[in-house]
Amino acid sequence: MRLLVLAMPGNEAMASTIADHTTGELGAIEARAFPDGETYLRIASEVKGRTVVIADTLAHPDPKFLPLIFAADTARELGAAKIGLVAPYLAYMRQDRRFQPGEAVTSRTVARLISSSFDWLVSVDPHLHRYRSLSEIYSIPTRVLHAAPLMADWIAANVANPVLVGPDSESEQWVSDVASRAGAPFTVLEKTRHGDRDVEVRLRDELAISGRVPVLVDDIVSSGRTMLAAVRLLKTLSPSPPICLAVHGLFADRSDVLLQGEGARLVTSNTVVHASNAMDVSAMLADSVVQMNEKT
Amino acid sequence: MRLLVLAMPGNEAMASTIADHTTGELGAIEARAFPDGETYLRIASEVKGRTVVIADTLAHPDPKFLPLIFAADTARELGAAKIGLVAPYLAYMRQDRRFQPGEAVTSRTVARLISSSFDWLVSVDPHLHRYRSLSEIYSIPTRVLHAAPLMADWIAANVANPVLVGPDSESEQWVSDVASRAGAPFTVLEKTRHGDRDVEVRLRDELAISGRVPVLVDDIVSSGRTMLAAVRLLKTLSPSPPICLAVHGLFADRSDVLLQGEGARLVTSNTVVHASNAMDVSAMLADSVVQMNEKT
Repeated sequence: MRLLVLAMPGNEAMASTIADHTTGELGAIEARAFPDGETYLRIASEVKGRTVVIADTLAHPDPKFLPLIFAADTARELGAAKIGLVAPYLAYMRQDRRFQPGEAVTSRTVARLISSSFDWLVSVDPHLHRYRSLSEIYSIPTRVLHAAPLMADWIAANVANPVLVGPDSESEQWVSDVASRAGAPFTVLEKTRHGDRDVEVRLRDELAISGRVPVLVDDIVSSGRTMLAAVRLLKTLSPSPPICLAVHGLFADRSDVLLQGEGARLVTSNTVVHASNAMDVSAMLADSVVQMNEKT
Repeated sequence: MRLLVLAMPGNEAMASTIADHTTGELGAIEARAFPDGETYLRIASEVKGRTVVIADTLAHPDPKFLPLIFAADTARELGAAKIGLVAPYLAYMRQDRRFQPGEAVTSRTVARLISSSFDWLVSVDPHLHRYRSLSEIYSIPTRVLHAAPLMADWIAANVANPVLVGPDSESEQWVSDVASRAGAPFTVLEKTRHGDRDVEVRLRDELAISGRVPVLVDDIVSSGRTMLAAVRLLKTLSPSPPICLAVHGLFADRSDVLLQGEGARLVTSNTVVHASNAMDVSAMLADSVVQMNEKT
């Protein structure tokens, strides 16, 4: 039976591409807010006996969460055979331990709730730092896709004479992989974080960027403080305006405007919809959806 | 061991009164938004081995829901003996069946999620229409409190010569109860709803209000369309400006301003914080908390 692909609000383009690539049917979810702020949700397609794929990227997750679970539960009640979640950006991965006594390890709660409503999960480069894999917190099958090849391809096709700059020493292996795929050298920043929005950086190897176009690469730009500090540093060291390349461009606190104001060029994948989207993860998501549907 | 009462943001006054009435300890939750919109949450009190009571009224529930579950899960992980939820206003009770094919029966999902994180629930006049009791959807012990006695007391103490007006024929039994407690007559409106915000009303018995102060009573004022239509109708029939008395004053779409603009006086309980709060449910919530703590 053909897959049924449903878009939560804002995920229509991604869902449509996934439906095309998987020869699935693009279904419809009707969602709106009641006057009191509660969500009305209706699945306007037949789900009975089918694998239902719900596309919902989870940037700014709090208000999106209940509607997402409503959609999954409704599909289940109406007889869907399997229900998969495609969350190109998976939220709440950074609170992966109790850093201070009493802190919520929110990654675990989100994983528990998603696992209670879905049969499988596909995501792109979730922030796996202290967890080695999503299976440490998700009890359902998960598949993690990597945007590194897309980033390498974009660099190779668009930047002459690049040097990659990673955000911190922990990212070294990942940056090294992207650099090697792009056939470019790389270095990393040494980062000291003083708070959510206060970050200090210096370059491990200043000579590495000499005569090259610096391409800052990171999995995510959130408050953008690391990128902003890095861009300001690179401007003092290189005549070429830096490129900021990230998988997930959240750009909190208007950091996209601030980065562009410093002369940086922003390039992101479409895991989070933004004007800087230049790398399309839809095809690889669609391939995973097909595999998950066959496997589960 | 003493109860530990925690307030989710905005519920500090209610939590403080419950702690006082139960001789419990008022604990502290630290919550803030990260730049990317995710919630940071920390319980800054010792929960181990204790009954933890979390106060969180659930008007405009979507953005509040994950933080609430984070708080409960954290208390559980840190060794709380029992975790109770005091939700003076319980959201998502009105979608209690699939009115159209494919609709989410959101009341069920919310009940499932709350039941998966809490050991008991106390609420005030949840909208029980097609469900006879919360136990049809909640798998944990629940207690429902009724504000009718508080409403009757308020009327008896504040309105000379009142006539109660119920919102529809379904409310007749409830309005009759409040009226009888207040020693006042009552009638009801006949309501026709054409949409979320479009309601038509007429009075079943126009003579009933003659020479009296009309007191519109309802469990909830949401979009306020019913109240507004009723106030406009009553103004044509009675020289006394009507009083709008409700348990839960959500006042969506600035309906509080609209109702006051029509000359109505608004009176609500503090299940939802609003300038019109004149009936305090804290003491009866505290009594229930003590009972639930002894029983479970």
